[in-house]
Amino acid sequence: MQRRARYIALSFIVLLALVALYRRYSPVLSIDRSQVELEEPPTPSQNSPPIRKPPQIHTVNTDPEIRRRANATFVMLARNSDLEGALLSVRALEDRFNRKFGYPYVFLNEEEWDDEFKRRIRNIVSSDVEFGVIPKEHWYQPEWIDEEKARKAMQEMQWKNVKYGGNLAYHNMCRFNSAFFFKHPLMQKYRWYWRVEPKVKFYCDINTDPFVSMEDNDKVYGFTLAVYEIPATIPTLWETVQDFMEKHPEYIRTEDNALRFISHNNGRTYNRCHFWSNFEIASMDFWRGEAFTKFFEHLDATGGFYYERWGDAPVKSIAASLFLKRSQIHLFEDIGYQHDDWGHCPQNQEMWEAGRCDCSIHGSFDYSPDSCRSKWDALGV
Amino acid sequence: MQRRARYIALSFIVLLALVALYRRYSPVLSIDRSQVELEEPPTPSQNSPPIRKPPQIHTVNTDPEIRRRANATFVMLARNSDLEGALLSVRALEDRFNRKFGYPYVFLNEEEWDDEFKRRIRNIVSSDVEFGVIPKEHWYQPEWIDEEKARKAMQEMQWKNVKYGGNLAYHNMCRFNSAFFFKHPLMQKYRWYWRVEPKVKFYCDINTDPFVSMEDNDKVYGFTLAVYEIPATIPTLWETVQDFMEKHPEYIRTEDNALRFISHNNGRTYNRCHFWSNFEIASMDFWRGEAFTKFFEHLDATGGFYYERWGDAPVKSIAASLFLKRSQIHLFEDIGYQHDDWGHCPQNQEMWEAGRCDCSIHGSFDYSPDSCRSKWDALGV
Repeated sequence: MQRRARYIALSFIVLLALVALYRRYSPVLSIDRSQVELEEPPTPSQNSPPIRKPPQIHTVNTDPEIRRRANATFVMLARNSDLEGALLSVRALEDRFNRKFGYPYVFLNEEEWDDEFKRRIRNIVSSDVEFGVIPKEHWYQPEWIDEEKARKAMQEMQWKNVKYGGNLAYHNMCRFNSAFFFKHPLMQKYRWYWRVEPKVKFYCDINTDPFVSMEDNDKVYGFTLAVYEIPATIPTLWETVQDFMEKHPEYIRTEDNALRFISHNNGRTYNRCHFWSNFEIASMDFWRGEAFTKFFEHLDATGGFYYERWGDAPVKSIAASLFLKRSQIHLFEDIGYQHDDWGHCPQNQEMWEAGRCDCSIHGSFDYSPDSCRSKWDALGV
Repeated sequence: MQRRARYIALSFIVLLALVALYRRYSPVLSIDRSQVELEEPPTPSQNSPPIRKPPQIHTVNTDPEIRRRANATFVMLARNSDLEGALLSVRALEDRFNRKFGYPYVFLNEEEWDDEFKRRIRNIVSSDVEFGVIPKEHWYQPEWIDEEKARKAMQEMQWKNVKYGGNLAYHNMCRFNSAFFFKHPLMQKYRWYWRVEPKVKFYCDINTDPFVSMEDNDKVYGFTLAVYEIPATIPTLWETVQDFMEKHPEYIRTEDNALRFISHNNGRTYNRCHFWSNFEIASMDFWRGEAFTKFFEHLDATGGFYYERWGDAPVKSIAASLFLKRSQIHLFEDIGYQHDDWGHCPQNQEMWEAGRCDCSIHGSFDYSPDSCRSKWDALGV
């Protein structure tokens, strides 16, 4: 009898492997949407959300016995003083997703971690947790930055009330989140990450594995909210990007990119739309790849992270919109999420019920005037 | 083979039933602690919690296939405007306990429920939910209350800044929570209840079924926090209780009660200690029984719920302390709980880890000067 059970189990595993292979390589099942000519974008009214079919992404079996895992981790940049906020975020994530999936966590800090922080985080997480300190050369401004010029620029931003403009640590953080978090030794073994910040909320059960879904559907960058950048933080960002595009046309996708999300006029100006990067699920292959590496070096060389206050969100959003197929960018409509005063609640009733969401459908930021969501919708991805 | 499996399953169930019966009736396993002579109470310092063995209560198997369920419900008194707070409490409870146990909820309101409230609560709860409206005669002051006297008393409390003293609805609520919630038609089918308020937090996984544990261990009333009542809310409460004790000595337990929790001098005065009743797990048999019914009628007849501002917490705590064996009152040390600024975090490291608690052991209110916890500890239950 035992032998018979073993045969059944083995046959089942082989069958699963065959199905997985078929799904990965079958041209019938994976339609390349980039080949589909775009129709005229709908013109959604600012106040009433257009009724849209929720974006489709394959459902992944969540049974821990048979599901495939991605090579993925959560990553949180935090300080010891962020403990209570970190606990809130991690607990929400564990309750709504990770208790069933068991992905590991990497916590990164510019300083040494307190024992208390480690002990309390470990207590609420059932999966592996690693705590890393950021190498100084990944955090502090590089030596070729003109400190006097940076100091004056920050002072001026402070006078002008540019949000976080006068806060050096914030500048360091933006640069770190642009191009260094994926270089941290603890992150090297992973391909995928899910960025989590202290004090965020997750409103719905997440019943499918977003990493595996993205991998299976050739996605690279996933987001929940899209917003406008503050103009005073990026006076010369777009001209620096244009300069790069001229020098390196080989990296820019032409037909099937998401340029229309970030520009109304085919790239002449930047409309300041960006994916709100405090939530991100993405492949580090993209950031570690040649295009983004060259792009970041080009941007960084101008000192714009210090002489202005370039955020990692516009920097990465512009890169994703120019270098990726728009179909490789995924809106996680089903992930209810809140950061500060802005939140996303699934607008689709069925999705809201399936996720047992505790947000109000009417309270979502998506179609408020400050959201770039309708710009994304217009792409028709 | 199938028949064999069925035999095995059946034998297992029979074995479990036998163990359950044995545990219930075996005198060896259930030591009546009330017979044990109390030693001198320990004198805990206010700042360093005494190291105590956590209270023992039998562990119940949480496997939904084999565990026994109690005849129990959650009950929340709320208003439509409490929706966000109610969602917070229910979600915490679901995540930390009820998604594994599936107990139903009863929501009670003095007014009709909004559809939005019902829809959003139902969306995050997997078990049964019922919404009831409180009958007017269970909520409003009875006709024999001298309205003029009550109005003046409330006005005076308002002038004297007695917390909620000038708020008529609060008086109604205290009276309702003392003796009417368990009379509501929706509550009739249940024996046990777990009182939950909007905006409370549950800090730890609750892996055993507190209802079944209480039932199996002859417990009647369970709490997490014990605090002092505000003197100005209960000027004549204790003399009214003393009057009842003289008239009805037949209801007062003598040897094994918890009088020492509520009085330093064998009942001459009330020390104002009470179980903080915004969290309660208890048997309604006790409240519906003769002793408490007579006790409440005696208290209510004086009008103290309106001419003063008697809270349901001291009223029920005094009743439990006088009419029950002290061993029938249970401190849920393992349930991490927070209401407003006061919280209980398990002080035992093992318990804290087993519950994956996200509270700070050092942040617990238990041994602060305003807590009655050390008075409870001194009983040695």
